[in-house]
Amino acid sequence: MALLVFERRRKGYKKYLIRVSRNKIFHTHLGPVNVGSLIGKPWGAAVETSKGAVAYVFKPSTADIMEKLARRTQIIYPKDAAYMIIKAGIKPGDFVVEGGTGSGSLAYALSLAVGPAGKVVSYEINPKFHEKAKENLSILRAENVILKLGDLRTDVEERDIDAMFLDLAAPWEVVPMAKQVLKPGAPLVAFVPSCEQIKKFVLAAREGGFGFIDVSEVLVRGYEVNEQRTRPSSRMIAHTGFIITGRKLAD
Amino acid sequence: MALLVFERRRKGYKKYLIRVSRNKIFHTHLGPVNVGSLIGKPWGAAVETSKGAVAYVFKPSTADIMEKLARRTQIIYPKDAAYMIIKAGIKPGDFVVEGGTGSGSLAYALSLAVGPAGKVVSYEINPKFHEKAKENLSILRAENVILKLGDLRTDVEERDIDAMFLDLAAPWEVVPMAKQVLKPGAPLVAFVPSCEQIKKFVLAAREGGFGFIDVSEVLVRGYEVNEQRTRPSSRMIAHTGFIITGRKLAD
Amino acid sequence: MALLVFERRRKGYKKYLIRVSRNKIFHTHLGPVNVGSLIGKPWGAAVETSKGAVAYVFKPSTADIMEKLARRTQIIYPKDAAYMIIKAGIKPGDFVVEGGTGSGSLAYALSLAVGPAGKVVSYEINPKFHEKAKENLSILRAENVILKLGDLRTDVEERDIDAMFLDLAAPWEVVPMAKQVLKPGAPLVAFVPSCEQIKKFVLAAREGGFGFIDVSEVLVRGYEVNEQRTRPSSRMIAHTGFIITGRKLAD
Amino acid sequence: MALLVFERRRKGYKKYLIRVSRNKIFHTHLGPVNVGSLIGKPWGAAVETSKGAVAYVFKPSTADIMEKLARRTQIIYPKDAAYMIIKAGIKPGDFVVEGGTGSGSLAYALSLAVGPAGKVVSYEINPKFHEKAKENLSILRAENVILKLGDLRTDVEERDIDAMFLDLAAPWEVVPMAKQVLKPGAPLVAFVPSCEQIKKFVLAAREGGFGFIDVSEVLVRGYEVNEQRTRPSSRMIAHTGFIITGRKLAD
Repeated sequence: MALLVFERRRKGYKKYLIRVSRNKIFHTHLGPVNVGSLIGKPWGAAVETSKGAVAYVFKPSTADIMEKLARRTQIIYPKDAAYMIIKAGIKPGDFVVEGGTGSGSLAYALSLAVGPAGKVVSYEINPKFHEKAKENLSILRAENVILKLGDLRTDVEERDIDAMFLDLAAPWEVVPMAKQVLKPGAPLVAFVPSCEQIKKFVLAAREGGFGFIDVSEVLVRGYEVNEQRTRPSSRMIAHTGFIITGRKLAD
Repeated sequence: MALLVFERRRKGYKKYLIRVSRNKIFHTHLGPVNVGSLIGKPWGAAVETSKGAVAYVFKPSTADIMEKLARRTQIIYPKDAAYMIIKAGIKPGDFVVEGGTGSGSLAYALSLAVGPAGKVVSYEINPKFHEKAKENLSILRAENVILKLGDLRTDVEERDIDAMFLDLAAPWEVVPMAKQVLKPGAPLVAFVPSCEQIKKFVLAAREGGFGFIDVSEVLVRGYEVNEQRTRPSSRMIAHTGFIITGRKLAD
Repeated sequence: MALLVFERRRKGYKKYLIRVSRNKIFHTHLGPVNVGSLIGKPWGAAVETSKGAVAYVFKPSTADIMEKLARRTQIIYPKDAAYMIIKAGIKPGDFVVEGGTGSGSLAYALSLAVGPAGKVVSYEINPKFHEKAKENLSILRAENVILKLGDLRTDVEERDIDAMFLDLAAPWEVVPMAKQVLKPGAPLVAFVPSCEQIKKFVLAAREGGFGFIDVSEVLVRGYEVNEQRTRPSSRMIAHTGFIITGRKLAD
Repeated sequence: MALLVFERRRKGYKKYLIRVSRNKIFHTHLGPVNVGSLIGKPWGAAVETSKGAVAYVFKPSTADIMEKLARRTQIIYPKDAAYMIIKAGIKPGDFVVEGGTGSGSLAYALSLAVGPAGKVVSYEINPKFHEKAKENLSILRAENVILKLGDLRTDVEERDIDAMFLDLAAPWEVVPMAKQVLKPGAPLVAFVPSCEQIKKFVLAAREGGFGFIDVSEVLVRGYEVNEQRTRPSSRMIAHTGFIITGRKLAD
């Protein structure tokens, strides 16, 4: 996989995530690129489209991949995934359960965080999303991720889990299952877009045997720089969702 | 290591990071705790101080450790470290150079991101910080981190580096060295508190052979929830620093 | 009235609002000031405390007065009052009703916005707040403000009102009265601290004959500047409340 | 003048500012409206386009007018104008100088703040902007505003001014003139989009006899509400400019 990056004045970048193979033409907003010609070039090399526009070819970062992952659902943004992982303290070797899988973007970030010695099991209730995520994660060679078709409220087969991540419409319905399958003290993390969901989840988690509950929202503000001036960007993504973290209390 | 957490109405939590050993008394704002008595308790257990106040004992997360690391300098906050790592695309097995080491908090986050198959070399010019960070990282058993006393502008001995992180007053002075020692396409990341530093670094990086340069600021807003109401917290940390990422262009 | 301002490195200013009179000593954190000695000095003059610290004496701005108004309740901040007034389109000559009066800080801002040809009637249900606000507004000589002890849900005697401002725990209970006493098309503005209140008020206003309903939150971020660096302040007031504006639809 | 408002799901409103006159057809994105038919209708009445879409007709607020004012330049947003006015403490009867006039949007907000007993003199160096602003302010009947073609650095004829507002590329060049023409203690307010301008202005103001200098940025975040959920809007205007306020010190 490679990332084609066109620099744009003021508006950041136009990025394309492409799978490299011979005899392939990739179409960009500034003309087609001969993908085969990328083979053997170093990362960071300049590439010309057949219309003469210049892009650079980079190894995609985790954030690039997450943003560009083919999807049928809302993704979790890199800013949110990164904060969820560091707040939960995910480390190499951890055993993590998450769901709904969606496009697999959070599963991919978790896959890197637990490393080859760890494991991620991701549940999805919708067969179409499940299939699409399978395809996405196979391309990304996330071999420590197991995708399961199933319902997090009732179907979790794993036990002694190090952490659980919920990206679902009604994460409070998973609290009893989470209490049952997590290790004592282990983090439970939910991502929700609305205030009503914050409240329902926080109250359910408190009731359901979790403590040390925090609600956070991560905002990323961009800046523009040239020789004359440094200033915040005029527009930003103002809301994706709220991150709620708690820890399972001992009985 | 264990984390003692007292819940506080409205103001989040009071947290203490303690090293567990027998025959030790740890003093909190709500009275002393007999640390030896924690041994054998499950994570998430309730602990009483000798004055009857209740805390919970948890395994500290990466974020908890970073916030509480004994320090002589400004730390990099978890929110910033997490975003830097996901933007740079750090993965298990990567070989990363960073500096100044400071308290070692970013080195610790990087240590987890590269995993046992990866390596972090961290430079620090101030011998006192270097010694303190050694102590901190030894307690944390970050065995894949090598701490070096030296100047990132001139002393970097490593080559073919996957990524470089700069937390220095004048990161633009390190651009030529970074260009020399990074792999083509590899990310260079700087963390700076002021607008003047943004500009100097961005212009130096553009001049010095880097492209795909982004400037971001990560803000975390807390929320308070009880049965009656859900609302943002009254106060927040409004600024730590700006994150600048770029990639080395091929020659 | 005068404002004493001590400049503080990094942390902005320490401000005192004082009533000027002869033979009065005013105590500051840097020593006492002889208030009588201010008489006859131009605004912007330097004043020494008896301990040798220097403050400047200024005419207080609307914002200064609102922040420093003696109070028994939460005030509405200048940032919020200013936005409420411009969104509602308050102009000289307007006839405005508001409540709860609280300390009178919003009534004071409204008093300036409607000018001598306009009128502000402010209701307060709590006799103690009502009395305190009377005192505050008399000192401020806000002669176009009439303070009434009463309940906005039931007691509004005015009709053909140009705008109504609600700073109450349950502003949705005032919607029927507002519908009755406002001119067609006139703005109804509520200020509420929690998400639950946003929802209840918005739904009640939509049901109750109001349209063009907007919910906004105003955040003010401070910056620090010296010869070396320009940067956002480390801390900020992250939340005061949400501003909801709507307009009465014609029948 | 009237405001036509179409409600849009999720994205707020589509607003049109129109001058009402007989025999006029106004074209909206949902079809033409017979403007003459609005005459005699109450504010808040529903209006149908010839394609059957429904809009509501309201008296435009100050904020609506500022946002929709015909313009050749960047306007000052209502959120910024409102904060500048309350921070500076502008009151009925004040005598204010501002510039550059631009479209006249700030002059209009100031006109309302000083009321009929006050006066606003606004300077503009560009004859085209000056002419356009004349037209705008005449439509708005802002009779207490005097527009002058001239340079704020050299041409200010007024003295004993209560406050001065600068919306210029190089406001620091106006500091000496401001020092000369403002009353002692009077506020000087600048609006600038970049960090470099903050610094230049703050240092020039400190040097040039001003104190009590504050730098602020006003951010307005929108929220969306329906029966199911309350949440921040996905996108926002993340930056317009920084507001700097200072006061003239006595000699």
